[in-house]
Amino acid sequence: MNDALSYANTHFDQFVADLHDYLRFPSVSTNPSHRDDVARCAEWLAAHLRAKGMDSVETVPTDGHPVVVAELIHDEKAPTVLAYGHYDVQPPEPLELWQSPPFEPEVRDGNVYARGAVDDKGQSMMIIKAVESLVKSGAMAGVNVKFVLEGEEEIGSPSLEPFFKEHRERLRADIALVCDTSMPGENIPALTASLRGMAYTSFSIARKGSDVHSGHYGGAISNVMHVLARMIAGLHDENGRIAVPGFYDDVVPVDDALRKELAALPFDERAYLEPTGLPATTPEKGYTALESSTLRPSMDVNGMWGGYSGKGGKTIIPASAGAKISARLVANQDPVDIRNKVVRYLESLTPPGYEITTEPVMLAHPVSIDRNHPATIAALDALSETCGRDAVIIRGGGSIPAVALMKQHLGIDSVMIGFGLESDNLHAPNERFGLDRYRRGIETLVRFFSKLPAQMAR
Amino acid sequence: MNDALSYANTHFDQFVADLHDYLRFPSVSTNPSHRDDVARCAEWLAAHLRAKGMDSVETVPTDGHPVVVAELIHDEKAPTVLAYGHYDVQPPEPLELWQSPPFEPEVRDGNVYARGAVDDKGQSMMIIKAVESLVKSGAMAGVNVKFVLEGEEEIGSPSLEPFFKEHRERLRADIALVCDTSMPGENIPALTASLRGMAYTSFSIARKGSDVHSGHYGGAISNVMHVLARMIAGLHDENGRIAVPGFYDDVVPVDDALRKELAALPFDERAYLEPTGLPATTPEKGYTALESSTLRPSMDVNGMWGGYSGKGGKTIIPASAGAKISARLVANQDPVDIRNKVVRYLESLTPPGYEITTEPVMLAHPVSIDRNHPATIAALDALSETCGRDAVIIRGGGSIPAVALMKQHLGIDSVMIGFGLESDNLHAPNERFGLDRYRRGIETLVRFFSKLPAQMAR
Repeated sequence: MNDALSYANTHFDQFVADLHDYLRFPSVSTNPSHRDDVARCAEWLAAHLRAKGMDSVETVPTDGHPVVVAELIHDEKAPTVLAYGHYDVQPPEPLELWQSPPFEPEVRDGNVYARGAVDDKGQSMMIIKAVESLVKSGAMAGVNVKFVLEGEEEIGSPSLEPFFKEHRERLRADIALVCDTSMPGENIPALTASLRGMAYTSFSIARKGSDVHSGHYGGAISNVMHVLARMIAGLHDENGRIAVPGFYDDVVPVDDALRKELAALPFDERAYLEPTGLPATTPEKGYTALESSTLRPSMDVNGMWGGYSGKGGKTIIPASAGAKISARLVANQDPVDIRNKVVRYLESLTPPGYEITTEPVMLAHPVSIDRNHPATIAALDALSETCGRDAVIIRGGGSIPAVALMKQHLGIDSVMIGFGLESDNLHAPNERFGLDRYRRGIETLVRFFSKLPAQMAR
Repeated sequence: MNDALSYANTHFDQFVADLHDYLRFPSVSTNPSHRDDVARCAEWLAAHLRAKGMDSVETVPTDGHPVVVAELIHDEKAPTVLAYGHYDVQPPEPLELWQSPPFEPEVRDGNVYARGAVDDKGQSMMIIKAVESLVKSGAMAGVNVKFVLEGEEEIGSPSLEPFFKEHRERLRADIALVCDTSMPGENIPALTASLRGMAYTSFSIARKGSDVHSGHYGGAISNVMHVLARMIAGLHDENGRIAVPGFYDDVVPVDDALRKELAALPFDERAYLEPTGLPATTPEKGYTALESSTLRPSMDVNGMWGGYSGKGGKTIIPASAGAKISARLVANQDPVDIRNKVVRYLESLTPPGYEITTEPVMLAHPVSIDRNHPATIAALDALSETCGRDAVIIRGGGSIPAVALMKQHLGIDSVMIGFGLESDNLHAPNERFGLDRYRRGIETLVRFFSKLPAQMAR
């Protein structure tokens, strides 16, 4: 292990240069005009893995963007880690807000600025560089590794489910390693023990007729905009609880030990609120803001539309309107069950003469990892040793579809080690990643791979 | 009068040809690329009025499109009619739904099809042709006429208020004549005795911050889309009454005589509902659909927006949202007062941390004409005589800004004689006007001008 840490230290400048090469690809998965860039990024990544000694490297085509796979099997009996990451990035727009071009990485004040710097090129590169360090220093013998690096995380990982179903045998592993999460502060090493799931639905309601004149009909007929507003207003009761019948049926109550654990975490409410511009959080009654955004389910409208929104006015009663609505789920809510309950509820609120059309957008199961899992212990140990202070266990409010899908289709739990910060501007202009965190991430993962076999053998 | 009717009869083919010329101008007032077409239409109209013997014809420039004015004063002591109409039209889109091009008038089954056929080129032309018939047959001596033909009715008549203020003296008259309304059926002559007013407001609500991640914040902070939905849902109570405090303060109760009059009118609810696709009307509690849409005020959202409405999903809690909202008003509601009450109500529903911005879009006073006014009697008489059956008095649910502005700034009541039908596709593809109704309209107006002096002298 020490040889590997020393290798990482000696080669750190090259690791940074490799990351820069990776960041130069505008691998924007949602934009069809970047399709070739995404493919080129996958090819570069495959070549890089091959150059660093990985076997069976392949870019596997899907209905969307390719998945890059690779493996290094020393010993069939040794524990196997499935390393997951994604090489696609969010769109960089608005470009004019970037201080340096998003696909020309630049280091300022110890941070590398580029789209994908932290999410997830920088963090997935930490795994590759840790494995490289172990391989080159001959310290990889006790553990096997398989890589799954996808190109569709930023669009909800639509190809991952069929990919996992088809490659179940090939991807067999003991634990998945995911580096796509964050830490609560610059010097607070953290392991994410749970993520919320998601049930995201788009719907529209429409009369059979067309827009009609608001003078001729105003007062005599119902208005689809008001129907939609009542539906959305009806999603929560006056205490902020979600009013969809049966929504909480399967929710596992938050236990006191967990609440205490969360309460002990550093949480700067002012810093948390800063990007929102709001004066206060408004958590679910009986819960703190941190509990409400990680341990409890939520329901939000992400967009809505209908009628005329241009300049001036149009005197119409519109014929149709719609909204996008997503629930964040916790154990043991099932996303399909929740989506069905939401759809049934919306249907029950649809008045005669209107038709509702719903379309599923994204589904993800909530996930959590056992704190006594050997991989959890190895990860906490590695984090604490690297950072010189006890690592904390945090809970994530977001969803990483891959984590749920690996559990569901491959039966594998994930250990989530993240070195991102809220201030890294994920999905925003001037995304960045601290090079010191990049270095500590690599060191942590070297230690994690080294410590895992002993923990697994216990 | 009979000479004039005979002139109208002899020259009807020419009257149709003149209307076709008028309809060929794509005088779409809302579209800046048609600015020159609107101006050319005004010039053509002025030349036409000049050719038909009008004096002091002028196209008066405004901040928007010009107003065409003309007059024919025989006798300073004779009653003066201010004839109002508009030469601008709605946009013709979607073009692919037109059977014949919107600006190439075509007669099919006795109807002329073109944008503006009924609204308002055809109907304003009825006045010009009635006056022409009277002038050419030497029968115009007992009455003076002034024309005000504007080019901005379809965009809310923004230039009319300053125009009226500036030309108060020049426009002095005893009664205004407006032909821009409809009749309840092909053979049911009708006079419109009232129009609703309007208070139209656009507003947006926003946090100071930006869109934030729905996973990191969902459950812990409020969502502007839900704030907007609660505002809109809160505009009406459970009985469908408008919940804005003080909204009904100045509403004159509907009296029984008026309700009886309305109940006696032909009203085909199925035909009324057909364009909406709805199975039933949902009038205000205690009122019929016809009462609710003409005699009672109403409140409708005309458009709303916020967040992400593209394909797929975006996992955000948006920072801003907005809506356009218009109230239709009845006597004695004041549009400025109502707008202020609506704005105050929306402000009262705006939670801490959000800012609301409101923008006035359109204002119009409700208007009504005295049934015992000499012009009303002359109009009913003319309608009944022309159509061979008693004319009915109807109430309009819409607003014609000019009617309110002529009352407010010139002190002139309007008599509203309309030959449009709901089935004429106003503001829609395949707009049309029945040539038989065009002919009867001209005859009615010849009789109206002929009968007015005697009624006014009573």
